[in-house]
Amino acid sequence: MNPADLGSSCPVPLEPETVRMAHGGGGRLSRDLVERVFRKAFANPALDSRHDSAVVEMGGARVAFTTDTYVVRPLFFPGGDIGRLAVVGTVNDLAVSGAVPRFLSAGFVLEEGLPIGILERVVRSMREAALSCGVEIVTGDTKVVDKGKGDGLYVNTAGIGLVPAGVDIHPLRVRPGDAVIVSGDLGRHGIAVLSVREGIAFESDVESDCASVFPLADALVRAGVDVHCLRDPTRGGLASVLNEIAADAGVSIEIEESAVPVSAPVSAACELLGLDPLYVACEGRLVAIVPGAQARVALERLRFLPEGAGAALIGQVSKGPAGQVTIRTTLGTRRVLDLLSGEQLPRIC
Amino acid sequence: MNPADLGSSCPVPLEPETVRMAHGGGGRLSRDLVERVFRKAFANPALDSRHDSAVVEMGGARVAFTTDTYVVRPLFFPGGDIGRLAVVGTVNDLAVSGAVPRFLSAGFVLEEGLPIGILERVVRSMREAALSCGVEIVTGDTKVVDKGKGDGLYVNTAGIGLVPAGVDIHPLRVRPGDAVIVSGDLGRHGIAVLSVREGIAFESDVESDCASVFPLADALVRAGVDVHCLRDPTRGGLASVLNEIAADAGVSIEIEESAVPVSAPVSAACELLGLDPLYVACEGRLVAIVPGAQARVALERLRFLPEGAGAALIGQVSKGPAGQVTIRTTLGTRRVLDLLSGEQLPRIC
Repeated sequence: MNPADLGSSCPVPLEPETVRMAHGGGGRLSRDLVERVFRKAFANPALDSRHDSAVVEMGGARVAFTTDTYVVRPLFFPGGDIGRLAVVGTVNDLAVSGAVPRFLSAGFVLEEGLPIGILERVVRSMREAALSCGVEIVTGDTKVVDKGKGDGLYVNTAGIGLVPAGVDIHPLRVRPGDAVIVSGDLGRHGIAVLSVREGIAFESDVESDCASVFPLADALVRAGVDVHCLRDPTRGGLASVLNEIAADAGVSIEIEESAVPVSAPVSAACELLGLDPLYVACEGRLVAIVPGAQARVALERLRFLPEGAGAALIGQVSKGPAGQVTIRTTLGTRRVLDLLSGEQLPRIC
Repeated sequence: MNPADLGSSCPVPLEPETVRMAHGGGGRLSRDLVERVFRKAFANPALDSRHDSAVVEMGGARVAFTTDTYVVRPLFFPGGDIGRLAVVGTVNDLAVSGAVPRFLSAGFVLEEGLPIGILERVVRSMREAALSCGVEIVTGDTKVVDKGKGDGLYVNTAGIGLVPAGVDIHPLRVRPGDAVIVSGDLGRHGIAVLSVREGIAFESDVESDCASVFPLADALVRAGVDVHCLRDPTRGGLASVLNEIAADAGVSIEIEESAVPVSAPVSAACELLGLDPLYVACEGRLVAIVPGAQARVALERLRFLPEGAGAALIGQVSKGPAGQVTIRTTLGTRRVLDLLSGEQLPRIC
């Protein structure tokens, strides 16, 4: 790289700062990159809303619009594959914005030499996931890159959905007294991917939780719960999502370790590998922040659905220091759950 | 690759069919892959419409929705860069569907080790292009892949726009007697990229035509021209776009070689390199198919704009064999302009 290519008139450092794996990990470095490079350049109200989707006005309708690229390695893992993930992940980004997911695009980067059979398998999986999520893949694109310039295949999906009248789900609505609920046990996706990637066999197999959270979100809205904020804890897990919400809303969040559902196999795998399940990715869980007075009805509605059977009230929002997330451990001590600088598990989605 | 991974119950061939560079070239192999793998799996009316964008109904509005991933090599070329291309290319896919482009998403795949300064330069270019096209980048995503699993950076943009009431621009509306118009000279983008990639210096520098075609499309609609079909001749160039239109509409298209505008430097470069300019990519040209009786007013309106100053009537639609595109050469002979199997220039966009 010619330093002149950096287009800077400042003295050129001998070693320019470069992209690191941690920039894609959903932690502090990811956030810094977004703030410093993207948000600075693309500043506009929809982007500034810090939602998982932008909500824009189109011909009188409120349209949620989101995108994600999927680079998970390996392409197939217990409970899912890159195709299913690409559909479900984007559907979930729409759902947590309060939208009814409707239409998806699919953009493929194929590496020269990829067996067509693998592509067909991924595409079939996308079709099945789209059918099960009630969305249609209506537009697409395919690019091929030279052998050694990709990793089999990458998929981008963008999605659009309609936000029904009256729905206003947004981190800025979170306030002291709100309850923090999760829809089920945490960390399955990350551990499932890791198990096949690293060839680790655990005592019991862990499958990814990869699934749409729309039925869960929809159940809350239909029950009349005044949902303040929804998130799906993917890259960086529950701890990162709560940190983002606390920072955006200017509140503290306190959770109880004993209340956070983690399955025995995920817990065992995390212990073995030195991972904290609070930072491990899920792909089918919902974090819901609702008024404290509605926590009970919200829990009931979630538990009524098979995918919400393990829903739990795990903490509450308080006035404490803005942006701080703390956990009361099973030992009774309290510690800060910070954003990690990078990721525990790269290329998890 | 384990053959069992192919998920087929048929006897497994020893050498499974694999993805080739030509599958991404916009020619016959691209089209075959789309038909065989994607259209088969994702069949639905919006996808089946064979438009550059899907047009879907959202809350009473007609919304055009499109996506493209950009893998151009090198990242910077005369007249543009991957960032500008990613904005303009998706804006153009919306514009040729008759939509007013409004909002874009941006999904980055960054290769570990990419200088942050390069990313900043690309992002600045995207901002400038978005401003000049009148669109906002409202949502985004960043993934990082290991060194050696990418090529600096890839960008996906998806876009949404509103199709105004009364506008119905669609390949199926093309009929015998229609006129075929291009908005300017052809092949600049492909030759500009090639010149830097291969280190070839031509007598006069060729710059990419990378620009929004929305003002051109809009001028035709506002002038009351009953535009039947619009396309931007990117991958595969004019010849490929005309082949697609002829096949989709079940008509023949005849063009006059002497009427097709190609600049002297592009022409010289093509001759030197053995390329046919009719197959070389443009990124800021419009192909418009309009009723023969309105060809004159359409030409006038296009030429009134600086970016349409070189507009030309190059041929017409006839009843001949469905899907056939022919050219009458300057020698007076007639030959078929077929789809190429692959591409002349890989990774041009």
